[in-house]
Amino acid sequence: MEYANYEALTPETLSTRLGSLPAVTKHLGTDPSGWQVREVGDGNLNLVFIVQSDQGSVIVKQALPYVRLVGDSWPMPLYRAFYEYHALTRQAARDPGTVPEIYYFDADQALIVMEFLSPHVILRNKLIAGEKVKGLGAFCGKFCARTAFRGSELSLKSADKKADVGLFSGNVEIPAITEGLVFTDPYFEAELNNHTPGLEPVINELRNNIELKQIAQQMLTKFASNTQTMVHGDLHSGSIMATDSEIRVIDPEFAQYAPMGFDIGMLTANYLMAFFSQPAHRGSDLDSYQDWILSVITDCWASFEAEFRSLWDSERTGMLYPKTLFEDQGHSSGAACDGVLAEIWRDALRFCGIEMHRRCLSLAHNADFETIEDTAVRAPLEARNLQMGAELVLKSDTLKDAKALVALARTYNARNIL
Amino acid sequence: MEYANYEALTPETLSTRLGSLPAVTKHLGTDPSGWQVREVGDGNLNLVFIVQSDQGSVIVKQALPYVRLVGDSWPMPLYRAFYEYHALTRQAARDPGTVPEIYYFDADQALIVMEFLSPHVILRNKLIAGEKVKGLGAFCGKFCARTAFRGSELSLKSADKKADVGLFSGNVEIPAITEGLVFTDPYFEAELNNHTPGLEPVINELRNNIELKQIAQQMLTKFASNTQTMVHGDLHSGSIMATDSEIRVIDPEFAQYAPMGFDIGMLTANYLMAFFSQPAHRGSDLDSYQDWILSVITDCWASFEAEFRSLWDSERTGMLYPKTLFEDQGHSSGAACDGVLAEIWRDALRFCGIEMHRRCLSLAHNADFETIEDTAVRAPLEARNLQMGAELVLKSDTLKDAKALVALARTYNARNIL
Repeated sequence: MEYANYEALTPETLSTRLGSLPAVTKHLGTDPSGWQVREVGDGNLNLVFIVQSDQGSVIVKQALPYVRLVGDSWPMPLYRAFYEYHALTRQAARDPGTVPEIYYFDADQALIVMEFLSPHVILRNKLIAGEKVKGLGAFCGKFCARTAFRGSELSLKSADKKADVGLFSGNVEIPAITEGLVFTDPYFEAELNNHTPGLEPVINELRNNIELKQIAQQMLTKFASNTQTMVHGDLHSGSIMATDSEIRVIDPEFAQYAPMGFDIGMLTANYLMAFFSQPAHRGSDLDSYQDWILSVITDCWASFEAEFRSLWDSERTGMLYPKTLFEDQGHSSGAACDGVLAEIWRDALRFCGIEMHRRCLSLAHNADFETIEDTAVRAPLEARNLQMGAELVLKSDTLKDAKALVALARTYNARNIL
Repeated sequence: MEYANYEALTPETLSTRLGSLPAVTKHLGTDPSGWQVREVGDGNLNLVFIVQSDQGSVIVKQALPYVRLVGDSWPMPLYRAFYEYHALTRQAARDPGTVPEIYYFDADQALIVMEFLSPHVILRNKLIAGEKVKGLGAFCGKFCARTAFRGSELSLKSADKKADVGLFSGNVEIPAITEGLVFTDPYFEAELNNHTPGLEPVINELRNNIELKQIAQQMLTKFASNTQTMVHGDLHSGSIMATDSEIRVIDPEFAQYAPMGFDIGMLTANYLMAFFSQPAHRGSDLDSYQDWILSVITDCWASFEAEFRSLWDSERTGMLYPKTLFEDQGHSSGAACDGVLAEIWRDALRFCGIEMHRRCLSLAHNADFETIEDTAVRAPLEARNLQMGAELVLKSDTLKDAKALVALARTYNARNIL
């Protein structure tokens, strides 16, 4: 991919540069002079514009050649728009209706024009505001199950899957962010780290636990060299937009081939962090809203498992666990499916615990905790989250199911650690 | 890769077609009329020519567009020469002196001109003939450890390793042979299967063991979607050439990124099959030769582990288990290394057991057993091998080390199964 002609868009130049594209004028009309353009990118990496006319609206997302959160001292390749485009098309095929519709893709300009979701807002903001979303857990579980199953050799032809692994293997720097920030940096005093004052005793304990670091590196090994399926790669509540009943998944530029348990593990971590942060955000509705968040987690896992088992029965056409070897011989493949799900569950718990650590210890914290301005309030809540994360990493073998997981979250939520 | 101009060599055309290549004339001289050309390919896939002059000798290996063992009804892409070439250069860099030197590579003709190993013969033939090779186990263990470690992100830069995974992901049909013939076909009545008459009771037991099939598919999943390191991919005693003290590894056209335990597991299986076949090949030297084969296995594992630990200490410069996280914090990484080795050991035992099955049940049996013409002699020996294979797959967690492994082999060797 060549980016010789790349130029970052601005609100002033956007209408001129994109004003004659049929894919855009189809939605906004042919008179760019009346378009309203707002730059709204609040993420860590990209320019995001909302473009509106009296006829309609689109989102224009353009990659920047550096990490926006850090600045141009941290270059970041423009090719991530290419991978985001390919990830979106695969997700749309594997779980239709769950991701924004793409109108236009320009590889040279690293930009994607897509559906403007309205009145959807970022799920994380709803969780901080105490707003519920109907069917959230079921939606997430089904999305994770469908993309995991249909992107693997349980379903895909091996030749197609291997070609796709080859395509995504070109995406080096984006996975490197996850590799460093998620799996390694939290566990020593890395340069870009920061944490809430007062957490030091808890952090010291984590960083002196050699077994914890060992398992984190084992999971890094798995993340970096297990190509089971194409994962979203950054599935947290900031990558989901929702109304009170409509949900979409956005921003898959961290897509890569990785273990099946990665997405659902990272997502579970983000729900748990929302849960642990609630005492600082809620009033009298604290208990009922925390209950709801935990129900999202159990719904998500129930839906994941049900959908995965259903696909196992109906769409197992790839080379793995073929029916010729089981059903056609009069042998049930139920235990084999249990085994695959058990590995996903164990991996997910470990990814979950690691994500709970990195969001409080490394770069790129999340708003659930960061918006708690009083650090004396924030630190004890983060401490619960950090200690539960360690238990998930270290004792993933003893935690039976999502019911046990949320029960554990309740016990940590009642602890006074600092 | 384009193969429009591809033409298979013959002993008659070889001198004319390669006679003016400097890389060849350097070894054979500039007068092709005096060259002697013999086609000696006895493998399953390729043309192999020995070309000799009074000045020297070379090997010319050329891929055929189909599986030689089966015929042109099973097409097989010529690009495997391209992967063999890349695998040989990487092995030469990672464990110098262990593979034949490459003199010339022609991608269009799918041919490699390389060092003629003489008086080396195929190790499998030596094992059938009862000949010992000094240092065999140590050589194999070191080769497996060095290629495993130095081809992984324990050592390589992640960007380089990912680029290599992308390169090798184009190799689809060759891994597909292993995927089907090794992991799936042995466990049901697949079309290309064949087995020695009399084995049916043992085979029925294997094919009715659902757990065995499940674990075989779990290992297939790992083989197909774990890119830990570049493996040889077909490391058996037919891929090793040796004198009584000099050893080389050949034929890495099945190279791919796969789990670290794959090569050493497959190789161990082939030593165990040599061991179990010996009663039909030896006379009074049976016990001492079988002892020697088992010592090759224990030497191999001892050398693998020692070399791996040494590289862990001296060359751990990749992103996995970085010293910043362990040694630099005053924390030992010894337990982490133990953990990595334990996973390699468990994987290897399972790959080993599966290979022991497929060589008696699927296509491409090996000469250790196949050269036993009396099937009434062969079947009981194969039965021991098949039953031990199942135990390795099913009980890999209970077998502590290579000493326990060879002790188990001795007990199966004493059983009268049929």
